[in-house]
Amino acid sequence: MEEKQLLMIPGPTAVPPSVLLSGARPMVNHRGPEFAAVLAEATEGVKKVFNTEHDVFILTGSGTGGLEAAIVNTLSPGDLVLSVSIGVFGDRFASIAKTFGVNVESLNFKWGTAADPEKIRARLHADKDKAIKAVLVTHNETSTGVTNDMAKIGPIVREHGALLLVDAISSLVAMDCQMDTWCLDLVIAGSQKAFMIPPGLAFAAVNDRAWAAMEQAKIPRFYWDLKKAKDYLARGQTPWTPAVPQCFQLRDALRILAKETLEGCFARHASMGAAVRDGVQALGLKLFADPAHASNAVTAVRKPEGIEVGALRKLMLDKYGVVLAGGQQSLKDEIFRIGHLGYVSPLDVVATLGALGLALKELGVSVDPSAGTTAALKALGG
Amino acid sequence: MEEKQLLMIPGPTAVPPSVLLSGARPMVNHRGPEFAAVLAEATEGVKKVFNTEHDVFILTGSGTGGLEAAIVNTLSPGDLVLSVSIGVFGDRFASIAKTFGVNVESLNFKWGTAADPEKIRARLHADKDKAIKAVLVTHNETSTGVTNDMAKIGPIVREHGALLLVDAISSLVAMDCQMDTWCLDLVIAGSQKAFMIPPGLAFAAVNDRAWAAMEQAKIPRFYWDLKKAKDYLARGQTPWTPAVPQCFQLRDALRILAKETLEGCFARHASMGAAVRDGVQALGLKLFADPAHASNAVTAVRKPEGIEVGALRKLMLDKYGVVLAGGQQSLKDEIFRIGHLGYVSPLDVVATLGALGLALKELGVSVDPSAGTTAALKALGG
Repeated sequence: MEEKQLLMIPGPTAVPPSVLLSGARPMVNHRGPEFAAVLAEATEGVKKVFNTEHDVFILTGSGTGGLEAAIVNTLSPGDLVLSVSIGVFGDRFASIAKTFGVNVESLNFKWGTAADPEKIRARLHADKDKAIKAVLVTHNETSTGVTNDMAKIGPIVREHGALLLVDAISSLVAMDCQMDTWCLDLVIAGSQKAFMIPPGLAFAAVNDRAWAAMEQAKIPRFYWDLKKAKDYLARGQTPWTPAVPQCFQLRDALRILAKETLEGCFARHASMGAAVRDGVQALGLKLFADPAHASNAVTAVRKPEGIEVGALRKLMLDKYGVVLAGGQQSLKDEIFRIGHLGYVSPLDVVATLGALGLALKELGVSVDPSAGTTAALKALGG
Repeated sequence: MEEKQLLMIPGPTAVPPSVLLSGARPMVNHRGPEFAAVLAEATEGVKKVFNTEHDVFILTGSGTGGLEAAIVNTLSPGDLVLSVSIGVFGDRFASIAKTFGVNVESLNFKWGTAADPEKIRARLHADKDKAIKAVLVTHNETSTGVTNDMAKIGPIVREHGALLLVDAISSLVAMDCQMDTWCLDLVIAGSQKAFMIPPGLAFAAVNDRAWAAMEQAKIPRFYWDLKKAKDYLARGQTPWTPAVPQCFQLRDALRILAKETLEGCFARHASMGAAVRDGVQALGLKLFADPAHASNAVTAVRKPEGIEVGALRKLMLDKYGVVLAGGQQSLKDEIFRIGHLGYVSPLDVVATLGALGLALKELGVSVDPSAGTTAALKALGG
């Protein structure tokens, strides 16, 4: 069964078969009427996911490209930004800003914990002369499996007046993100996470405060220029040739999500998150993230004593066809990660925990292999 | 037959059904062994198309993103470049350079004509103090249907010593491009042209001279950083999550092209180019491009007297399902364009000319509707 895989990583995630086939439609003219209809419907659908009345753009590129767009469209070299980082992707957002000449002040929190909104408030409160132009925050930190409380952080930043740029790449669709209500100014998401479509697209949601910042922003931009995206969207196009298959897929996946409803989607992710956390702990493993801020999209698990992360992942892949993610950077040999976002069902989670129980036993860990699935089923209401 | 279209535009181009389905494969881990194998085979295949022994990278984005990569990786603000432009895409290349603070000296040629290599030689010869750091040239200008003679231009630029950055987005696979022999230093191509796969990828080929320029280049770069691409390719990965479906499709389309052979592919495009040019002229229409430099990938045709380009394109689409491209910018109401690159057969060209004959007659043009197909069949050996 070499070909049968359970892709349990935090992106690219599995894609529904009907959505895979949506991408296999014959090409169309990206400046013609068929594509304009697809782009319009998809853009409206993404707007609903962002919970925004403002502008949303579909960009061709990875999520990192979207983060670059957020930086280069709103900032100038020499601007001061406060980078709130809780992991690899928070650090990456800061790196992008530094690369383009922005002064980055880091407010880092221990990996595995969430950002403390009160510490952000204190730092912004101390900024009497409003030197801080923008605050960078990751909604869901994929490297550690921690979700930041954007509903609290947003209003704190708004009170100060800085622009709030948010990496919501792995959060959107998996958990609630109320862009307008929570006072988020420019939010980036990616296609290959909970949207259930392949990688290739990034989404940028832009409010009036972000547009105003763009008027002043001096970092040069061409491919990622959001004003060009706005001009072209007005005529049903993108400035540059888009990844047409992923646009078809986005439209069709949004129709599926609309049937499930966003609330249903969040509830499914919450129940899968709980089942994974209960299941791995029942197998004697320790969670890496602070349980109070554990992500419902991805769970980071400390490796069992005496076992190599690489060996566990290889056995899970080779024998059981379950694809897990490793740790990144300093966490490389410390944790493995289970993605449970997008086209994943609670039963996929049960199957994954079953394979994990068998693999741990095979690697010599003293464990009841069925403890994970039993705990997961209980969490799911069994 | 609303759904049956002949997509005769210069990109996105039609995709073979088997290649469409390659993109519908289930997702894989982009940092796992399956993707590494796909990336390695695809990269080697693209290298052969560029005719280079140097580095080739697969980037997620449009061709314009690739052009931005060429500029930001090799130049510094204030550098002087010579922009050789013969149309919209040459101008775009120059615009990107200007956007990033490069001083652009324009050597523009009349739209419809090719760049005169001797004029490039004269300008570079006059640059005694070697102020010109790079020369920007479009191999095949999609907006006018003209192909520049890169085999002549390359050695002229190399003699001066400037870096030669080439937009080969719509030329690669459709016509010969000998990167190493012709002394091209950094060459960009795009997936949605003659490669027969959907949009979503750009390709960058980089020689040692371009790498050396990168050491000095000060324009900031993150997403498009080719050094990051090199580091990650060494471990079978891309720095950012790639458009996985298009990578599968690229690998599989390259296998099909390998069977046809590049020479067979060039011959097919040459014969389609000749058939289109003979056919439209037999229908009484005038070619826009200088016949001596007419592109074998796309043909620009002057609109017939008294007919609107928009009306002709609409009738071709609505009644015959043939998608033609309009003119761009100042050529918007002057020309239409027939793309004949990628997954197009000589018989698609015949069908297109048949529809064009009928449509012209229906719009009141005094014409023998079969003159185009007759001439095309003759050009094809009939």
